[in-house]
Amino acid sequence: MNNTTAPFRPVTAITMGDPAGIGPEIVVGTMLDPSIIECCKPFVIGSAAMLERAAEVLGKKITVRKISDPEEALFEYGQIDVLETGDYDTDSIKWGEVQPLAGQMAVDFIMKSIELGLAGKVDAVSTAPINKQSIKLVGVKEPGHTEIYQNATNSPYALTMFSCHKLRVFFVSRHMSLIDAVHYATKDVVLDCVRNINKELKGVGIDEPVIAVAGINPHNGDNGLFGTEEITELFPAVEAAQAEGIKAVGPIPGDSIFNIGKSGKFDAILSMYHDQGHIACKTLDFDKSVTITWGLPFIRGSVDHGTAFDIAGKGIANCVSLIESTKVCVEYAVKKHLREAA
Amino acid sequence: MNNTTAPFRPVTAITMGDPAGIGPEIVVGTMLDPSIIECCKPFVIGSAAMLERAAEVLGKKITVRKISDPEEALFEYGQIDVLETGDYDTDSIKWGEVQPLAGQMAVDFIMKSIELGLAGKVDAVSTAPINKQSIKLVGVKEPGHTEIYQNATNSPYALTMFSCHKLRVFFVSRHMSLIDAVHYATKDVVLDCVRNINKELKGVGIDEPVIAVAGINPHNGDNGLFGTEEITELFPAVEAAQAEGIKAVGPIPGDSIFNIGKSGKFDAILSMYHDQGHIACKTLDFDKSVTITWGLPFIRGSVDHGTAFDIAGKGIANCVSLIESTKVCVEYAVKKHLREAA
Repeated sequence: MNNTTAPFRPVTAITMGDPAGIGPEIVVGTMLDPSIIECCKPFVIGSAAMLERAAEVLGKKITVRKISDPEEALFEYGQIDVLETGDYDTDSIKWGEVQPLAGQMAVDFIMKSIELGLAGKVDAVSTAPINKQSIKLVGVKEPGHTEIYQNATNSPYALTMFSCHKLRVFFVSRHMSLIDAVHYATKDVVLDCVRNINKELKGVGIDEPVIAVAGINPHNGDNGLFGTEEITELFPAVEAAQAEGIKAVGPIPGDSIFNIGKSGKFDAILSMYHDQGHIACKTLDFDKSVTITWGLPFIRGSVDHGTAFDIAGKGIANCVSLIESTKVCVEYAVKKHLREAA
Repeated sequence: MNNTTAPFRPVTAITMGDPAGIGPEIVVGTMLDPSIIECCKPFVIGSAAMLERAAEVLGKKITVRKISDPEEALFEYGQIDVLETGDYDTDSIKWGEVQPLAGQMAVDFIMKSIELGLAGKVDAVSTAPINKQSIKLVGVKEPGHTEIYQNATNSPYALTMFSCHKLRVFFVSRHMSLIDAVHYATKDVVLDCVRNINKELKGVGIDEPVIAVAGINPHNGDNGLFGTEEITELFPAVEAAQAEGIKAVGPIPGDSIFNIGKSGKFDAILSMYHDQGHIACKTLDFDKSVTITWGLPFIRGSVDHGTAFDIAGKGIANCVSLIESTKVCVEYAVKKHLREAA
């Protein structure tokens, strides 16, 4: 009798992204990486024909196995389980071009992942990049993945987190001008972010997460000498969070917080504007910088690069980022499972 | 007959900084590092008694040799040439405290380095940290080293550069609120910075430096969708610089430029605000992040940490940063020498 329990391997959908971009190539590369099947039960939501075209340009041999439901997947190394979302004229897809069919396919893959996620059939979704212009051509109003996932799952919020080595970096705002971002980071908004981070990290078993809040001005404004946002907004936000029992610390000057956090001293860092956290992670290690979206009914991971139309179909795309983002979202899906099973 | 020429070793003054901080300890550690005497002719502008106190807390034996002019220095490993600036009551100096005598000594060391620099007696100056409050106590109006050096040498500008591995990062502004910094980065100001960087790098033999200008808004504002400073100020500044024959490129989004630059692709990166470049360098490698000041009659290097009063006199201060900053400023002093000799 064997009492050891096999480690939990989350069912993980990898969406193929825009078929005209590097998505098909990096998905093939990721599915051929043995470490993926070791940590999860992966299948692709995409197009079998496009994966085969990608394998050809990569000079790889693949065996594709079509499924219509994750339950039919075998999750065996050496063959790629693919769930298709329609019968598309994939022969017409041109590498590296904005085209309506590619936009439609990318959206269909996403919507299928949401359908499966809401039905509890997948634990994690790892997404290859989409092209904003292509999805706009087919009437999508959201600017990107995060907003599509939030809206289609009716989630009250979708928190973006950058993972890079031991850094977990969240953002008060993202696609906003720098000036607007500074004005947006009020006490209430920052406090709300800290609360949501606290809730989400607890949901994956980090019981009393230490959440470090970054400053806005150089040296935290040096006691109001150059910039007062720390005094009027950030210290009050941290104090209010502490009063609620949250282990918030800071504000810590933006140019120190990531260096301090590199060693794992904080469970999370809250960046005050897009570039603050992005500069830190991407400069530290671009390939290991991946995005996790919190607040959805399932864990979503994403690469931090785009469709790279300039090199699509050339067999030179690097799949390291998709492998990494898949592993990181799987890691959190496992933590969430253990937390819920506890 | 031997035709080989010994490599040029610049005469390098290391100022001891605030005697109550970690300056004496890190200066002792630096002078005991064999790689320093290999690359330059180093001597200390400081206090022999304080160096001996520092050596004691470090558990090191040192031999100090007082000199009154760099010409008297022997630059021999195993003994530290020290140029004193007065007969101070160093017994009264308390580790880790703001005190007028310490402020006065720190300023005297700096002024002596300027006197020697202006007289052409030193090629490079490497500075240990000072305490802003202590120098304020003795009537210094400038907020820090850079401004003191600029004013006392009557230099038209003093450009701060961060060196970290292959990154050379300059700044449009430094100690200014983030909002003010964004407003300050106009076309004319940015163009002026690019011109000065171009001039200074040429002065050390980088003939046609490629100068990359960073963006301000996330993704460069995505064509004005979130932020217009790239359109109204930064692209015009880069174009104007190019029209003058300067190899300026950009603006490149802030979250990509440092990652791209890590490999040495650019000769310089111009950061639009303090934290932009500081976050990149300090997150990448805090210990190897050192400051060079350009525009003075000599090359000045500096550590990027402070006096660390909390650990002063405890024998635990890390001298890696002072060793690194000394080496980097020596490196540029050599380049400048070779350029001038060419």
